[in-house]
Amino acid sequence: MTSQQATLFRTHSALETVHVQEGTQVVLSGWVQRRRDLGSIVFVDLRDRSGIIQLVFDTSKGTPAQVMEAADRLRNEFVIAVQGIIVNRDESAVNPKIETGKIEMTVHALEILNEAKNPPFYIQDGVDVDETVRLRYRYLDLRRPEMQNILRLRHRLIKEFRAFLDENAFVEVETPILTKSTPEGARDYLVPSRLQSGEFYALPQSPQLFKQLLMVSGLERYYQVARCFRDEDLRADRQPEFTQLDIEQSFIPLDTFQAMMERMMQSVFHTVLGVELTVPFQRIAYQEAMEKYGSDKPDLRFGMEISDIGNLVQGVDFRVFQQALESGGAVKAIAAPGCAGYSRKQVDELVNFVAQYGLKGLASISVLEGGELKSSLSKFFTPEQLQSIAAGVGAKAGDLILIAASSRQQVLQSLGALRLKLGYELNLADENEFKFAWVTDFPLLSYDEDEQRFVAEHHPFTMPKWEDLDMLESNPGAVRAQAYDMVLNGYEIGGGSMRIYRRDIQERMFRTLGFSEEQANEQFGFLLRAFEYGTPPHGGIAFGIDRLVMIMGRGKSLRDCIAFPKTSSGTDLMMDAPSPVSDKQLDVLNLEIRQRQPVQPRV
Amino acid sequence: MTSQQATLFRTHSALETVHVQEGTQVVLSGWVQRRRDLGSIVFVDLRDRSGIIQLVFDTSKGTPAQVMEAADRLRNEFVIAVQGIIVNRDESAVNPKIETGKIEMTVHALEILNEAKNPPFYIQDGVDVDETVRLRYRYLDLRRPEMQNILRLRHRLIKEFRAFLDENAFVEVETPILTKSTPEGARDYLVPSRLQSGEFYALPQSPQLFKQLLMVSGLERYYQVARCFRDEDLRADRQPEFTQLDIEQSFIPLDTFQAMMERMMQSVFHTVLGVELTVPFQRIAYQEAMEKYGSDKPDLRFGMEISDIGNLVQGVDFRVFQQALESGGAVKAIAAPGCAGYSRKQVDELVNFVAQYGLKGLASISVLEGGELKSSLSKFFTPEQLQSIAAGVGAKAGDLILIAASSRQQVLQSLGALRLKLGYELNLADENEFKFAWVTDFPLLSYDEDEQRFVAEHHPFTMPKWEDLDMLESNPGAVRAQAYDMVLNGYEIGGGSMRIYRRDIQERMFRTLGFSEEQANEQFGFLLRAFEYGTPPHGGIAFGIDRLVMIMGRGKSLRDCIAFPKTSSGTDLMMDAPSPVSDKQLDVLNLEIRQRQPVQPRV
Repeated sequence: MTSQQATLFRTHSALETVHVQEGTQVVLSGWVQRRRDLGSIVFVDLRDRSGIIQLVFDTSKGTPAQVMEAADRLRNEFVIAVQGIIVNRDESAVNPKIETGKIEMTVHALEILNEAKNPPFYIQDGVDVDETVRLRYRYLDLRRPEMQNILRLRHRLIKEFRAFLDENAFVEVETPILTKSTPEGARDYLVPSRLQSGEFYALPQSPQLFKQLLMVSGLERYYQVARCFRDEDLRADRQPEFTQLDIEQSFIPLDTFQAMMERMMQSVFHTVLGVELTVPFQRIAYQEAMEKYGSDKPDLRFGMEISDIGNLVQGVDFRVFQQALESGGAVKAIAAPGCAGYSRKQVDELVNFVAQYGLKGLASISVLEGGELKSSLSKFFTPEQLQSIAAGVGAKAGDLILIAASSRQQVLQSLGALRLKLGYELNLADENEFKFAWVTDFPLLSYDEDEQRFVAEHHPFTMPKWEDLDMLESNPGAVRAQAYDMVLNGYEIGGGSMRIYRRDIQERMFRTLGFSEEQANEQFGFLLRAFEYGTPPHGGIAFGIDRLVMIMGRGKSLRDCIAFPKTSSGTDLMMDAPSPVSDKQLDVLNLEIRQRQPVQPRV
Repeated sequence: MTSQQATLFRTHSALETVHVQEGTQVVLSGWVQRRRDLGSIVFVDLRDRSGIIQLVFDTSKGTPAQVMEAADRLRNEFVIAVQGIIVNRDESAVNPKIETGKIEMTVHALEILNEAKNPPFYIQDGVDVDETVRLRYRYLDLRRPEMQNILRLRHRLIKEFRAFLDENAFVEVETPILTKSTPEGARDYLVPSRLQSGEFYALPQSPQLFKQLLMVSGLERYYQVARCFRDEDLRADRQPEFTQLDIEQSFIPLDTFQAMMERMMQSVFHTVLGVELTVPFQRIAYQEAMEKYGSDKPDLRFGMEISDIGNLVQGVDFRVFQQALESGGAVKAIAAPGCAGYSRKQVDELVNFVAQYGLKGLASISVLEGGELKSSLSKFFTPEQLQSIAAGVGAKAGDLILIAASSRQQVLQSLGALRLKLGYELNLADENEFKFAWVTDFPLLSYDEDEQRFVAEHHPFTMPKWEDLDMLESNPGAVRAQAYDMVLNGYEIGGGSMRIYRRDIQERMFRTLGFSEEQANEQFGFLLRAFEYGTPPHGGIAFGIDRLVMIMGRGKSLRDCIAFPKTSSGTDLMMDAPSPVSDKQLDVLNLEIRQRQPVQPRV
C-alpha cells in the first residue's frame, strides 16, 4: 500500500551523497530507475534530477524485514523516499559510469510515495520511440536526463543574457500579449474580445512597436525575453509560439550597438559553454554573402566558396552555358574537396538534389592526383580552358568541380544548398566551432510580384542608409537598409536594424510600400503621432532563443528545446489543444463557426 | 532644420558627468526639459534617463554663433546631442535639487536629432492630468521619472526573485501561452485555430497544470515569471493580462516550502528596498483571520481587532442584538482609538459606509477620558453591562466602540471593512512597515448556491489535509485544504498549496465537485493519466508581481505598475486595441460575428 503521507523528507540529492562521510545517515527521494532482485539482496537504482545512486536492501546489513518486503513491490518509476547510510562500495563493485559509482546506500527505511504503471518507453537517453508518443507523454519524455539538460541549458542561457544586459543598464520591460492586429494580419493569432463585441486583440508577432515606443519614452536601453506568435503554415521546424530575446537602444551608432551584441555573445558563450569567441565578428555584405555562399546566412566554418566562371566560359560553344549567359543568367561553380573520385551515380545524386531548386543539371570536372582533369565538358572545352576554370575556382588535386548555369538566383540557391550538403557530408564543419558573422547592407525592399508592390525586406520600420535615402521614391529596390543579421553556423540567430525615428521618413516609407495616408494612419497612427513628440534615434535586434538553444545544445529539432512544443500542425498532443469549446463560450463572444469542417486526423 | 544624421554620440549620461574632472569634454544626449533664454545666454535643462543637467549656451564662453542660433530653436522635448565641457558652477548658482547641481556644461556643438510638438502634458512627476490622456500618450507618460522608477523597481524586483531562485537550484521553464480551454472556461480568452478549423486554443489563467506536469517530469524545482490571462468583468483595478511569479517544488513538507518562500522575500526586500524582514512570518488560520479581522488578507500593521460580544449582550432586552443572536447571527465590535469624540454626523457616515455590506446600523459606545461611557445603548444596558462590553473589547479611554449585529458573515465583512477604513484614516498603518503573514487552513471547498454544488475554494488540484481526507465525501464543507496565502499589508500577494498527486484522490475530488467520470476524463484526462506514472508529492505558490510592485513602490494603481496597461474595459487606448479585423481574417478562421453590436463609446 502507498503510504498515506510522506514522513521521510530528502536531506540530500543523489549527487550530494558523494560529499558526505561514510556512515552518514541521509534521506533520499526520487524514482526507481531499475531494480535487481538477487533474493536475499535487492539493488535499486534511485534517480533524482541530480543523477543516480545505488540503494542496497540487505537484511544482513541492517535492512528490516518489512522494508525488504516493501522493496519487493518496487517497480520502475515508483516514487520513493529512503532513509539509510552512505557506505563505500568494494573496489570490485565500483561503477565508473555514474558519478556516485564509488558509494551506495544501505536502506533502513522506505516509503512508497506513489506507484507507477509501466511507462510507454523506458526513461533513458537516446530513446528510440516515435516522436508523437514522446509528445503525448511529454511529462515522461522530460524525465530523460538529456531533455532535462536542454531545459537547464536554456535556463542558463537566458540567465546569462539577462546578467549581461542588467550589467549594461538595460531594463527588462514586459509588453502586452493582448495587442492590436497589424496589416500583415494574415499571420496574427486573433483573440475575440467579449467586452468589445465583434472586435479582436491580436497576439504579437514581436514586441517591435512597443519597444520602439519605449525608446520614445526615453527608456534608452530595453530588453525582454518575449513570447511571440505567428500563425504560419508550419514547416517542419516552426512553432506557433516562440521566444525572442528582444533588445532596443537609443542614441547609439550602428557599430557601437553591434559591438555590444558581440560582447554579449562572448560573455554568454564563455559562461554557458566555456567557449571563447573572438570579436569583432566577421562582417559580410548581403550581396557578397549571396555571391560567395548562395545564402544570406552562410555557414562559415568551411570554405568551398562559389566562384563565378562566366568570363571563363564566355564564347565557348556549349549551349547550356551560353544560353544562361545570354539570358542574363550566370555560370558558377564550387570545388568539393576529395570528391574527384565520385562515381557517375554519386554525381547524379547531386544533380537530383539541385533539381529541387529548378536546376536542370550540373557539369563537373574532376581534378585528379597529379593535376589531370576529367570532365564531361571535354567535348566542348580545350584542356587549357578546363584548366583555367579549375584555376578560377581554386580547385586542388582531388577536388570535384561542380558547375551550375541558369538564372543568377537559381544558380546561387542551388550551389548554396549544394555547398551546405557537401560540407556537412564531408564533415568540413567542425561540430565544436561556433562561427559568428554579421550579414549587413540588406536591401530595404523587395518587389512582390503577387502584390505588385514593394514589400519591406525586414519590416517597415527599418531605417534606410542615409546615403540611399534619396532613392526611396525613385529607385526603391536599390535602397539598402541599416539592417543586420547575426548568423551562426548557417543559421540566422538574430535580426535587427536601426529604426526610422522621424515622421517624415516613416511616411515616405509607408507611401513606398503602397499605403494610402488613410491606411497608414489607421494602422500606425499611434506610431506616427509618437514620432512627433521627440523620438530619439534608436535601433535594436531580436534573437531566436529556441534556435540558439538548439545550436548550443547541438540538437536536431526546435521541439526538443521547448518544454511543451506543438506539432507541425500546431497541436499540443499531450493536452489535446486546440479543442472544440462550448456553445456557451461562443455565445458570450457573439461568434459563430461558419462551416464545421469534418474532424481532421491529427499528426 | 533637423540634421540628417547624428554625428555626435553620447560619451556620458547626465549623471555620470558628476564624476568627470572639470574641463573634460563630453557628449551628452537627451531631451530638452526646459529652455530659458536670457538673450546673450541660453540655459537648457537636458534630461536623459539618469537625470537632468544644465547646458549653457554662451558666446562669451566659447559657444559658436551658429550653435547659439540653433539653441534659439530648441523647444521642450526636442531630442538633442551636445558636445562641450563640464565646468563647476559658481557657488551662488549651485542647484541642490538636482544631483548634477554643482556643475553645468558649456556647449560647443549641438545637433538637433528630432523635433517635438508641444506635448499634451508637461513631462514631470505628479502631473495632474486625466488618466485617459496619460494612457493614450503612454509613451510620454513613461518619460516621467516616477514612471521610469516604477519600471526599474519592477525590473529589479523580478531580477532579485530570479537570483534567489537560481541560487536555490530552481529552473525557469517557459510554458505555453496557446493552450487548452478548461471547464471554468468562461474566463478563458480563446484563440481560434486556423489549421484546426472550429477549434480553439485558450490563453492560460495560470501555468498550474503545466507546472504540475513538470513535477511529474522530475524537474523538482521550477519557477517562471509567467504571463496569465483572465477574461473577467474588470473591476477598477484588474487587468486582463497580469504577471505571476509561479513556483513549484517536489518532495518537500509544507513548512519547509513556506520557509523557503520567506527567505526569498527576506532576500528580495533586503536587496531591492533595503528593508529587513523578520522570519518566520506570522501564521493565522483562515478562521482566526476572519474572526479577528473580518478578512482573509488582514492588514496586520495595526490592531483594532474584532471582538465577539455575543455572550456579553445575551439576554439584554435590545431587539436588534437579540434577533441577530436568535437567528444564529453574531454581535461583534471594534474599538476605534481616539474617536470617542466623533460627532453624530461622523458616526452616521460610518453607518452609511457599512450599509454597502447590507448592515442596517451600528451601535456605538464612547469611552471618555476618565473612563466614563456615553452610548446610544444606555436606554437598554446598565452602566455595568456597558463597562463589561468595553472591557470585552479591550477599549481604552478615547476609544469609540462600534458594534454590529447581523448574520455572522455580514458582521465580519462590515467590521472588517470598517476596521480598514478607520485604520487608514487614523494613520494606524505605518507606510514604511511591511507586515507579512501566512493565512492557512483554508476550507477546501465552498458551497455554490447558484450551481447547487461544491466548488473549489482555490482550485481542484489542492490537496486536502490528510486528517480531513475522510470527510471529502461525507462532509465536504468541513475539509480543510493544504493551502496558504501570503498576505502583506492587507493584500493577498501570493496563494499556493500542496497539490493532489495521486489519481485516486484527484478522482475523489472531481466527484465531490460534481464531475462525471466522463467529464473528468475529457477535461483532465492527461493529468489523471500523468498521475499514474510516478508523480512525486509537490506543491507551490504564485505571487502577483503587478500588485507587489504596487505595494513596494507605494503606488495607488496597478496600471501604474505596468508599462502598457489596459483600461477597466480592457482597452489599450494608445494602440486602440481591441479593434475590428478584416473579413479576410475572419474568413480564414471560418468565423462569423453573430450580431454586430453598435460601437460602444470607449473609456
